Amino acid sequence: MTDFTHLDQDGRVRMVDVADKNISKRVAVARGCVTMTGDTLARIMDATVKKGNVLEAARIAGVMAAKKTADLIPMCHPLNLTHVSVDFFSDSDNNTLEIEASASLAGQTGVEMEALTAVSVAALTIYDMCKSYDKAMIISDIHLKSKTGGKSGKFLARRYQK
Amino acid sequence: MTDFTHLDQDGRVRMVDVADKNISKRVAVARGCVTMTGDTLARIMDATVKKGNVLEAARIAGVMAAKKTADLIPMCHPLNLTHVSVDFFSDSDNNTLEIEASASLAGQTGVEMEALTAVSVAALTIYDMCKSYDKAMIISDIHLKSKTGGKSGKFLARRYQK
Amino acid sequence: MTDFTHLDQDGRVRMVDVADKNISKRVAVARGCVTMTGDTLARIMDATVKKGNVLEAARIAGVMAAKKTADLIPMCHPLNLTHVSVDFFSDSDNNTLEIEASASLAGQTGVEMEALTAVSVAALTIYDMCKSYDKAMIISDIHLKSKTGGKSGKFLARRYQK
Amino acid sequence: MTDFTHLDQDGRVRMVDVADKNISKRVAVARGCVTMTGDTLARIMDATVKKGNVLEAARIAGVMAAKKTADLIPMCHPLNLTHVSVDFFSDSDNNTLEIEASASLAGQTGVEMEALTAVSVAALTIYDMCKSYDKAMIISDIHLKSKTGGKSGKFLARRYQK
Amino acid sequence: MTDFTHLDQDGRVRMVDVADKNISKRVAVARGCVTMTGDTLARIMDATVKKGNVLEAARIAGVMAAKKTADLIPMCHPLNLTHVSVDFFSDSDNNTLEIEASASLAGQTGVEMEALTAVSVAALTIYDMCKSYDKAMIISDIHLKSKTGGKSGKFLARRYQK
Amino acid sequence: MTDFTHLDQDGRVRMVDVADKNISKRVAVARGCVTMTGDTLARIMDATVKKGNVLEAARIAGVMAAKKTADLIPMCHPLNLTHVSVDFFSDSDNNTLEIEASASLAGQTGVEMEALTAVSVAALTIYDMCKSYDKAMIISDIHLKSKTGGKSGKFLARRYQK
Repeated sequence: MTDFTHLDQDGRVRMVDVADKNISKRVAVARGCVTMTGDTLARIMDATVKKGNVLEAARIAGVMAAKKTADLIPMCHPLNLTHVSVDFFSDSDNNTLEIEASASLAGQTGVEMEALTAVSVAALTIYDMCKSYDKAMIISDIHLKSKTGGKSGKFLARRYQK
Repeated sequence: MTDFTHLDQDGRVRMVDVADKNISKRVAVARGCVTMTGDTLARIMDATVKKGNVLEAARIAGVMAAKKTADLIPMCHPLNLTHVSVDFFSDSDNNTLEIEASASLAGQTGVEMEALTAVSVAALTIYDMCKSYDKAMIISDIHLKSKTGGKSGKFLARRYQK
Repeated sequence: MTDFTHLDQDGRVRMVDVADKNISKRVAVARGCVTMTGDTLARIMDATVKKGNVLEAARIAGVMAAKKTADLIPMCHPLNLTHVSVDFFSDSDNNTLEIEASASLAGQTGVEMEALTAVSVAALTIYDMCKSYDKAMIISDIHLKSKTGGKSGKFLARRYQK
Repeated sequence: MTDFTHLDQDGRVRMVDVADKNISKRVAVARGCVTMTGDTLARIMDATVKKGNVLEAARIAGVMAAKKTADLIPMCHPLNLTHVSVDFFSDSDNNTLEIEASASLAGQTGVEMEALTAVSVAALTIYDMCKSYDKAMIISDIHLKSKTGGKSGKFLARRYQK
Repeated sequence: MTDFTHLDQDGRVRMVDVADKNISKRVAVARGCVTMTGDTLARIMDATVKKGNVLEAARIAGVMAAKKTADLIPMCHPLNLTHVSVDFFSDSDNNTLEIEASASLAGQTGVEMEALTAVSVAALTIYDMCKSYDKAMIISDIHLKSKTGGKSGKFLARRYQK
Repeated sequence: MTDFTHLDQDGRVRMVDVADKNISKRVAVARGCVTMTGDTLARIMDATVKKGNVLEAARIAGVMAAKKTADLIPMCHPLNLTHVSVDFFSDSDNNTLEIEASASLAGQTGVEMEALTAVSVAALTIYDMCKSYDKAMIISDIHLKSKTGGKSGKFLARRYQK
């Protein structure tokens, strides 16, 4: 008879079982930055980038990417997001665009990854739309700003605490 | 008879036509960092993260994401990548993991976005695998390191030039 | 300190937050037509199209496309459809195939887009299967026939009201 | 010994083998219409639709959908499009928006389906963005306008021939 | 007036409506085997396969594929899986790797297809990672081991019954 | 200055670089079986399965899955398949359906995985369409029958050699 040995690898990748978690309203907000030349930022703000409206393309790409999070991140659970938004803030003194994304769900698992994915793909889209002007753009400071709902409760990144 | 007016919007988003570009071997290398607590970095290096082998999951996620670039970034052309790799470097002094991704193609358009997408999704996967320990991780300094092939020729980011 | 300015663009694209909507049984029915030559319609009905059974391919493509709606339409919410069906009606006098798709869900948001997407992709599949015979086929009259469930209540397109 | 019988079904669906076709530059242009109330068309033109910039969302959705054609239409070949564009025309007298999409490729198979898919998904996105105002919008007259390249040569729909 | 005839085809493909089924906790476990040369199995176990860690790649591919089941199997309902795991067992006497996948959900429809899809894609990934050594590998005995939840109740394949 | 250490893991997963391989016509043929009760096989052959035409659904699912291979198998290269077909053979004596899939490409890498994926997903679709009758169906003997093109030349599985 066949005699199989379980390959019980330490460190094997696993998707956490969330079946017994409570359904609660969950919201996560993430932020990140794209730093560029002053000229590139001015083109974005004036909507004179040759490939088109950068912020609108980045916003739509960010929202659509949030919906693909479970397809991108191996151990993320598929979720039915009830809301995603992507907003932009500019800092002309430092030639930086800040991206903020918010994701919401009534469910058994948090939506941090969805918010972080929206920020990341919005940032990549900004890079793509502007790269013919400025290949040295840097995407940085992608972080979770806040999170509510779920057993672990409210998280607010230290820099936002007073 | 119907009389249509073309809505010739300035700033409308467009995908550049690459049909007349030459086919050349193109390689792009991108880099980025994830900063975390010393404890989290130690768990990754020791492969004691509860959700499994972080670097292997991040590497596979990065390679798979490079193949989805045109599905994520609105104006990216679909490409048949011939190679993608994702590597990791650690800096224990600064509690930082560095991610480097390389993408190659013989084609009519560059593969910068594929390399940058691989880095971004590998970084997001590291965040996801470790977020139960450390929600304050920061993904930063995602940038194009180098690029060869195509009309615009070789690009090497200033920090790598001697 | 960094001083960011919110780029509060009017007209920025947003996904409506449906978290506070009631969960109700929702059904949407959409319809559309493909007009072709009499010869092409006869081939479809006789199952003599060289590329295979047109209606079966179109039906399956329509059902599968309904499941991809949130991946196609930027601001659509991801949904767990409980039912999709696609049916066909022929009108030999006018050389027209009519497509009807129905989608259902118990959820917080309507399924009109899922039904309309099923009709559209079924129609595109009919075009693809028959285009070697008839490039002049026209897809037309794609509309929402009816909708039940949700706050806005029952909708029945005027042409179906007595 | 096992004795299998080939189920040689007539009408079985098949993907045409294009391996022996010549590589040529191929361009396809498709068109379609969305008819709505005058009020809805005015909101789109004034960019006062609550869900955001309708034309920009529809344009981006159309381009992204063209890249997914082989994933939607069962027997379509996967292609590396070199160009996709989506344009809009308005006809205020008839409360109609016209959508035109163009797709290009240097390859072995035509890109009609990609252009038609871009038009269809752009139209569905217009419906989605405006459906809270106007559920009776109709998507119609989706057709191939022209096609160049490939063995069958140039096609120009009769209505565009002089 | 248009007079459409319903093409009420027997045998037309349909997605079962699950809206009226009860929500219950559902778990499915599937198994399958890959048979190979002793040399190939030894390389997998020693992690000396040139393309990398075969089991980790297969495990991640299996979990990610379970999340794509509704995108692959035409009439499967989209589901929000709460858990997927993939495990491996070796039988050196018979040069066989056994794959076991488990999928869970609290929902209205079973998750057999998700577990079977995870096993199948994990097996295909093993083939892909090792095919330069051993093109004659055979994937076999993919079956449902057990299933709990739902109206039809508990299923345990005969070979596991005592 | 930052001092990064390369984590040069043995056994790390990698995608082989195919850029320097020759472009040649490549064809792969794969086969596999589904074993079921005689009653289930009879229903499939008579097209009396309640969920619809099993073979047509399985054929379309197999072709569509071949196009998704690079999205499913982590280290597979994205390819522009020129042809995919799926055929069925029945063996009533042994209550078995055999599936054969063929995939073709003019390219730098083989299409074995595409043919094997088509067989696997066609088999899973057969299971899904019939599982209400027969949960004990077994998918087995999935193997590469033959392969032509590429540096390694012609492969014909031993059982097909005379």
